[in-house]
Amino acid sequence: MKFKEKLSELVAERKTVVCVGLDSDFDKMPEHIKKLDNPILEFNKQIIEATSDLVCSYKPNIAFYERLGSVGWDILKETVSIIPKAVPVIIDAKRGDIGNTSAMYAKAIFEDLGGDAVTLSPYLGEDSLSPFIEYKDKFSFILCVTSNAGAQDFQFLEVGERPLYQFVAESVLKWNQKDNLGLVVGASYPQKIKEVRSISGNLPFLIPGVGAQGGDLEAAVRFGSDDGNSLVLVNSSRGVLYASNGLDFAEKAREEVQKLNQIIADLGIY
Amino acid sequence: MKFKEKLSELVAERKTVVCVGLDSDFDKMPEHIKKLDNPILEFNKQIIEATSDLVCSYKPNIAFYERLGSVGWDILKETVSIIPKAVPVIIDAKRGDIGNTSAMYAKAIFEDLGGDAVTLSPYLGEDSLSPFIEYKDKFSFILCVTSNAGAQDFQFLEVGERPLYQFVAESVLKWNQKDNLGLVVGASYPQKIKEVRSISGNLPFLIPGVGAQGGDLEAAVRFGSDDGNSLVLVNSSRGVLYASNGLDFAEKAREEVQKLNQIIADLGIY
Repeated sequence: MKFKEKLSELVAERKTVVCVGLDSDFDKMPEHIKKLDNPILEFNKQIIEATSDLVCSYKPNIAFYERLGSVGWDILKETVSIIPKAVPVIIDAKRGDIGNTSAMYAKAIFEDLGGDAVTLSPYLGEDSLSPFIEYKDKFSFILCVTSNAGAQDFQFLEVGERPLYQFVAESVLKWNQKDNLGLVVGASYPQKIKEVRSISGNLPFLIPGVGAQGGDLEAAVRFGSDDGNSLVLVNSSRGVLYASNGLDFAEKAREEVQKLNQIIADLGIY
Repeated sequence: MKFKEKLSELVAERKTVVCVGLDSDFDKMPEHIKKLDNPILEFNKQIIEATSDLVCSYKPNIAFYERLGSVGWDILKETVSIIPKAVPVIIDAKRGDIGNTSAMYAKAIFEDLGGDAVTLSPYLGEDSLSPFIEYKDKFSFILCVTSNAGAQDFQFLEVGERPLYQFVAESVLKWNQKDNLGLVVGASYPQKIKEVRSISGNLPFLIPGVGAQGGDLEAAVRFGSDDGNSLVLVNSSRGVLYASNGLDFAEKAREEVQKLNQIIADLGIY
């Protein structure tokens, strides 16, 4: 099934748009997990078991695994494989290279790791995205507005009559011929989510930066989904993964997702 | 020793600025290599043995290894380890993420893989580069003008009175407080190499796109180095790696590097 259909079904069924970012950092794990043979995989396994019936997606950031070298790659691959098939996996990779090289990254992410979707960086333009777009059942979220302070350095520059991130949004809309593109729009700037939604049709949004990075969940969902008319995913990583540093970390992670889901339910959109 | 010093010494000693891109693709290898147990590593080993006394740097693109999953990561790591210590290695990764995530990528590339330098994408701004800059002996080349057609989609957009890529060059110059930043400026647009050189002081340039991608070597070196006044590296990948598809592939790769070196020597700059 196409990523987008899989996601739509889950949103309708679970009445939530929460994505959990599996940015699993050994240094922040509970002590009893740190002592295990394969602590990161075990941590992920318990987080997934505790939350997979409540979320719409998981988003491991590949950097947290590459940090460990080839061992980390294997942990990531195994993590993807234990996520229930109904729940799509976005590999947060922010890749972007010239065409023949991007094709290699697409193989790595969609074939070797088995991801359903990916995040990509737009700086190299359309031909750097094409090899990913060719996988018609897979999906690519292109960076538009990111949630960090550095977003201002280039993304906010005026090109013509509008900021660069708006030009990126318009370009992605134009390139969306296979209906498998979306945008990353950070929660740190709720007004920009509204702005980008108004010029990007129904492109699905992936919204990071809720929680540890301080973004506003209600505004992100309301503006991002255009009150339920477009697909949106709101990602929380640290807020869920490290809700507790004790034996009850998985239980507390579940409670944290439930809290996010309740806030979303209270909006009355879904 | 700092990457920049290592590189300066080699350029002075070898009178060349050639970098060989180790974008080693199994499908393009000679048949006798394909039959070996670890064909990619064996291929790299023979290319390195045949050329390491003639080049200033190697630049493996990580995508060609990630394509193979964790096995590929190990091959890349071993490839880096067999390159003679005097010859610096640039990991072509085009990474860029929010600060705490970029720090993970920096660990992966500088610590796990053992790269001396990296390529980074600028879209997320200064704080996405900082964790790499913190490694003061390592070096980061930031994408400015890329060698693909898609470069035109965003990089050439006018911001204020100049194109985005010029704004990126000016920003990188400003951020170069630790003297460990440079720019990637593709050979497909020689006039732009000249233009970017005129506004970016002595920032070292990494110039891909010579050879298979059709860039002009003489113009790249002359404009990129400002007639020898700045550091420049000119990368060739496919032209060297696949100079022959027979038993003599390594020998032919060496001849190809010698040809490039001769063209550079004939410029009379070094």
